[in-house]
Amino acid sequence: MLDSVTWVDDFGHIHRSWNAELSVSAGKLRLLDQTLLPERREYLETADLECVFDAIKRLVVRGAPAIGCAAVLGLAAVIRRQEFENSTVLIDQARQVANYLASSRPTAVNLFWALKRCVELLNPKIAVAELKDILLHEALDILSEDIEMCHAIGRNGAPLLSSGCGVLTHCNAGALATGDYGTALAPVYTALENGISVTVYSDETRPLLQGARLTAWELQQAGVDVVTICDNMAAQVMREGKINIVIVGADRIALNGDTANKIGTYALAVLADYHSIPFYVAAPYSTIDAALADGSGIPIEQRDPEEVSCGFGRRTVPRGVKIYNPAFDVTPQQLITGIITEKGIIKPPFHKGIGELLQRR
Amino acid sequence: MLDSVTWVDDFGHIHRSWNAELSVSAGKLRLLDQTLLPERREYLETADLECVFDAIKRLVVRGAPAIGCAAVLGLAAVIRRQEFENSTVLIDQARQVANYLASSRPTAVNLFWALKRCVELLNPKIAVAELKDILLHEALDILSEDIEMCHAIGRNGAPLLSSGCGVLTHCNAGALATGDYGTALAPVYTALENGISVTVYSDETRPLLQGARLTAWELQQAGVDVVTICDNMAAQVMREGKINIVIVGADRIALNGDTANKIGTYALAVLADYHSIPFYVAAPYSTIDAALADGSGIPIEQRDPEEVSCGFGRRTVPRGVKIYNPAFDVTPQQLITGIITEKGIIKPPFHKGIGELLQRR
Repeated sequence: MLDSVTWVDDFGHIHRSWNAELSVSAGKLRLLDQTLLPERREYLETADLECVFDAIKRLVVRGAPAIGCAAVLGLAAVIRRQEFENSTVLIDQARQVANYLASSRPTAVNLFWALKRCVELLNPKIAVAELKDILLHEALDILSEDIEMCHAIGRNGAPLLSSGCGVLTHCNAGALATGDYGTALAPVYTALENGISVTVYSDETRPLLQGARLTAWELQQAGVDVVTICDNMAAQVMREGKINIVIVGADRIALNGDTANKIGTYALAVLADYHSIPFYVAAPYSTIDAALADGSGIPIEQRDPEEVSCGFGRRTVPRGVKIYNPAFDVTPQQLITGIITEKGIIKPPFHKGIGELLQRR
Repeated sequence: MLDSVTWVDDFGHIHRSWNAELSVSAGKLRLLDQTLLPERREYLETADLECVFDAIKRLVVRGAPAIGCAAVLGLAAVIRRQEFENSTVLIDQARQVANYLASSRPTAVNLFWALKRCVELLNPKIAVAELKDILLHEALDILSEDIEMCHAIGRNGAPLLSSGCGVLTHCNAGALATGDYGTALAPVYTALENGISVTVYSDETRPLLQGARLTAWELQQAGVDVVTICDNMAAQVMREGKINIVIVGADRIALNGDTANKIGTYALAVLADYHSIPFYVAAPYSTIDAALADGSGIPIEQRDPEEVSCGFGRRTVPRGVKIYNPAFDVTPQQLITGIITEKGIIKPPFHKGIGELLQRR
């Protein structure tokens, strides 16, 4: 796929089996710079702590799974480059680096989880060189698991698609947000592998335009037929019969199935319901928050008004006018047809299917 | 109000009784340059044909009623400045000017109607000086009627609003689009005159952002509490209980009540229905197309993809990606609570109310 997050090993090979590219440098984290898309495709290769921190903070890499992978590979790279007197010094340093990287995006749960998972493996009884390998292998395992998660969601979701059908998606829950196929877009890529071509309608997704800039770009790269629309055109496209299924990602899923996702998702669910179009959420089952009975407990984060007023390089809202800029919304479970996870598709009643899945977890 | 279209008379007075501004120039059309909003408030004063044509074409003035007023005042100004051997020469010239101005915006029905109305009054038996006055007075009459239409819609719609209520609107059907109070915004301005303050939520209205740039600006100027949101936030704002009524304008209304308006209107109607929020269309009754049984006969104009991909100084969609950019959509009559016209509010069944109104016409 797109190599949004990869690892350049000590022999200069990029750690992605299907990627033949070589790199002259070695032992580095390699990130596709998403801030330059869609106009430029440039990679950042680094083993420098400040540079990794800055890349996560500046959204060079974004999407919860991709951020987690980037952080642990960054941690491995930084530690790998340094010399340590003994294992205790290395572990101290690794903890500091992990804490620092964890502070780059304060609300990214995957980031904390992935860094913690790596640091917890470190034991002062193990030799310095081996600790460096452990960090790297754990990071690569996290990346591999993420890739496998994408493929499993793709396998589970692909049967929902038939040749020539129209898929509407929102924001970017694709390859750029994960280690590989993405979540919402994984069924599309898997279907394509199986010779089934669909048309994806991609909402531009105001205010930050992840749909226009990122989803359209990655689908174009993969040879998927993609049509960009403004968010307010989704209803019209549905009315014209162009959409057979809506698939979106998720930030957080409550035990009853209520789903928090990028602002605009809830509107799509209402519109899909009105037009009798199935509405699916695709997400790893780790997105289910076992502490959350339903969506009413999810606070709606308000973001910087300038994202709305000056998003396109020019001021588009008069100075002094109030702006309401919620980052996401909550889609109530009754509007959701199914939740596509790596463990299978959960169907209503969601509290039952989710409960069973969590018991297995 | 905002003087989006005014007339500067031969004594330098601006022809709007509530406006105390004076102008040093005379006999000129005066237009607020909407292309510079919201960052700059500049007026264009002219009696030059090319300049009037260009102003309509470049959207210095926009909104069907405002375009009609600008064109006839432009015609009057151009003819007023010239010397003519006799009345026949003046009439020939007026017809040429009218035809030329009519070609500035090929789909603007008000433009053709208003120019035709002025030119038809010209009779070669009338003296040159008097013909010039007839053109001017007819143009000023058209402006006055438009102003009165706005006020009547305002009077009819204002009782729907109560103090502190939330009004959602889309695009710009306000003062900038008409001679005075607008259509969708007229009830808001009238309520304010009566001491009833409401909060208007203004969709930014992609792709051209008329809501963000124009509606927010004019409401701010008038001292109305206004909050700009992205189009995909409307559902969330409704869900939070912030919206008590939706009021939008209309481009064209069929005999059964189906209404064509700016893209995104239909989605709002579906969302309002889901949230049990009344959804009103506000428009002069001339917007009703007696030749149109229902909305299925309205072709959906496709506009330039670059409006979406490079709207505001920066490319936001990758080159080569397909873009679907319908200019408007059709809201089916069953989603409309009422149509606010200058003759009163039409309620369902619309075919009956509209039929009665047309019989009076």
